[in-house]
Amino acid sequence: MSERVDVAILGTGPAGLSAAITLKIRNKKILLLGSKELSGKVVKAHEINNYLGIPAVKGEELAKHFADHLRQMEIEITEDMITNVYAMGEYFSLQSKSNQIYEADAVIISTGVNFGKPYPGEEQFLGRGVSYCATCDAPLYKGKRVALIGSSPKEEAEARFMSEVAAEVYYVPLYKDEVQLGDAVKVVKDIPVSIEGKMKADKLILKEQELEVDGIFILRESVSPAQLVPGLAMEENHIAVNRKMETNLKGCFACGDIVGAPYQYIKAAGEGNVAALSAVSFLDQKKRSEVK
Amino acid sequence: MSERVDVAILGTGPAGLSAAITLKIRNKKILLLGSKELSGKVVKAHEINNYLGIPAVKGEELAKHFADHLRQMEIEITEDMITNVYAMGEYFSLQSKSNQIYEADAVIISTGVNFGKPYPGEEQFLGRGVSYCATCDAPLYKGKRVALIGSSPKEEAEARFMSEVAAEVYYVPLYKDEVQLGDAVKVVKDIPVSIEGKMKADKLILKEQELEVDGIFILRESVSPAQLVPGLAMEENHIAVNRKMETNLKGCFACGDIVGAPYQYIKAAGEGNVAALSAVSFLDQKKRSEVK
Repeated sequence: MSERVDVAILGTGPAGLSAAITLKIRNKKILLLGSKELSGKVVKAHEINNYLGIPAVKGEELAKHFADHLRQMEIEITEDMITNVYAMGEYFSLQSKSNQIYEADAVIISTGVNFGKPYPGEEQFLGRGVSYCATCDAPLYKGKRVALIGSSPKEEAEARFMSEVAAEVYYVPLYKDEVQLGDAVKVVKDIPVSIEGKMKADKLILKEQELEVDGIFILRESVSPAQLVPGLAMEENHIAVNRKMETNLKGCFACGDIVGAPYQYIKAAGEGNVAALSAVSFLDQKKRSEVK
Repeated sequence: MSERVDVAILGTGPAGLSAAITLKIRNKKILLLGSKELSGKVVKAHEINNYLGIPAVKGEELAKHFADHLRQMEIEITEDMITNVYAMGEYFSLQSKSNQIYEADAVIISTGVNFGKPYPGEEQFLGRGVSYCATCDAPLYKGKRVALIGSSPKEEAEARFMSEVAAEVYYVPLYKDEVQLGDAVKVVKDIPVSIEGKMKADKLILKEQELEVDGIFILRESVSPAQLVPGLAMEENHIAVNRKMETNLKGCFACGDIVGAPYQYIKAAGEGNVAALSAVSFLDQKKRSEVK
């Protein structure tokens, strides 16, 4: 386990990056978790006209401006994805896809809106045959039948790993790129509809067929906020926050697309700044009460 | 009176400019009111490190980035200051310091926090011997004694104009620059304390002396929000808004420093974007209900 940080920031879109630079200026020890390619959504944007100060910019170029800013401020990105955030009272414990445990006094959630809508049955069977982390739960499926739903080619590594453990592995890609997996994995080109079962999930219903399995892994770009942080209050599909970007959990802040529309870069960057400064004042208060 | 616009934006700091570019992209007819020098606060900033995408930038340089953005999008600034915004039901009527009347279907207030705290007696006697607009109210003081409090050298023009009308004119500068006024104006280098009177204000109390006058003009960089828009709900010293940047008045939005801390450029720019998009959806709804 790594050293405890002041603030862990989940997500490397404009909200997370803006939070990171503001916290760095305020001399906080941060852990910025996400992708070194920053945000896929930014990079792929055709042209952005409403990021004040950087007119008519291609997404790829805007991402370069952001990366330069991080470099100038010596901010590193840790390439890992958090699957669970637990409020431990005095701090937060973060569990990652790569099976790391991180600790932070405060958390800023800025993972965007790529988590998708849960499938019918998904939430009901979560932890009982449904999982988001193949690396974590693979040992439970030794010699068993498993289906994985992958949202991007990155997830193929999970299927490959699973095939070394499970007896039968199905892989359902949600993308059009060619799937590069060996014979040990059966690629199923179909559309997931729902998950069924009794005590445990035992069937993945697809549009054209059904797969009888012991475990179903749903591998998305990010985890839905309610799954990510137990007890987090939502407002429809988004994390509920006030104007200080505080969630209902003390020390847990959220910003960017995940707190709601409009889905705009400059709005996300502004909110990241506010979340960071709210986290700073939370840490100050925490410190003062510890001294007493 | 000029043609009615879709949205009038009051203020040319980052919030107002961000709102302007977003509204322009959405093909709205806008009136952007403020200074061609944009925001004094931005221009004078030493170095800004937390405007994501533009690292380690001097305020003057950041203002240039903003000006370039406006130029590329062919957005003009109207150099005028609004002293009163009246909600007329179907539209807003805006009265300016230069005695213009503008009309707009929606209003975005982003005038910053330069309005200062009112002097004791100021609000009590407003309209009864206290005024914010020398140009508008000068005729009322023909042959009378008048004091003007000026927050910047720009206000000297008001004192000069007043001296052509009133019998006795005192000018109290709140700045250190040399005052350039002729003999018709008595410059009083002192600090205003309060305003006193009975039915009408008749005395300006300064730290070292008292001025017996018939009228007192307080000329600040911007008007306090409560004076600017009658009926606007405040939260302490700031305009109360929700996360959509809506105020309590339908069609009236606010963003930037005027809606509260943190006073940060990127936060203001983000809020300007949100206010603009909320104004767009307000205009859409208005149009739909008119068609019915």
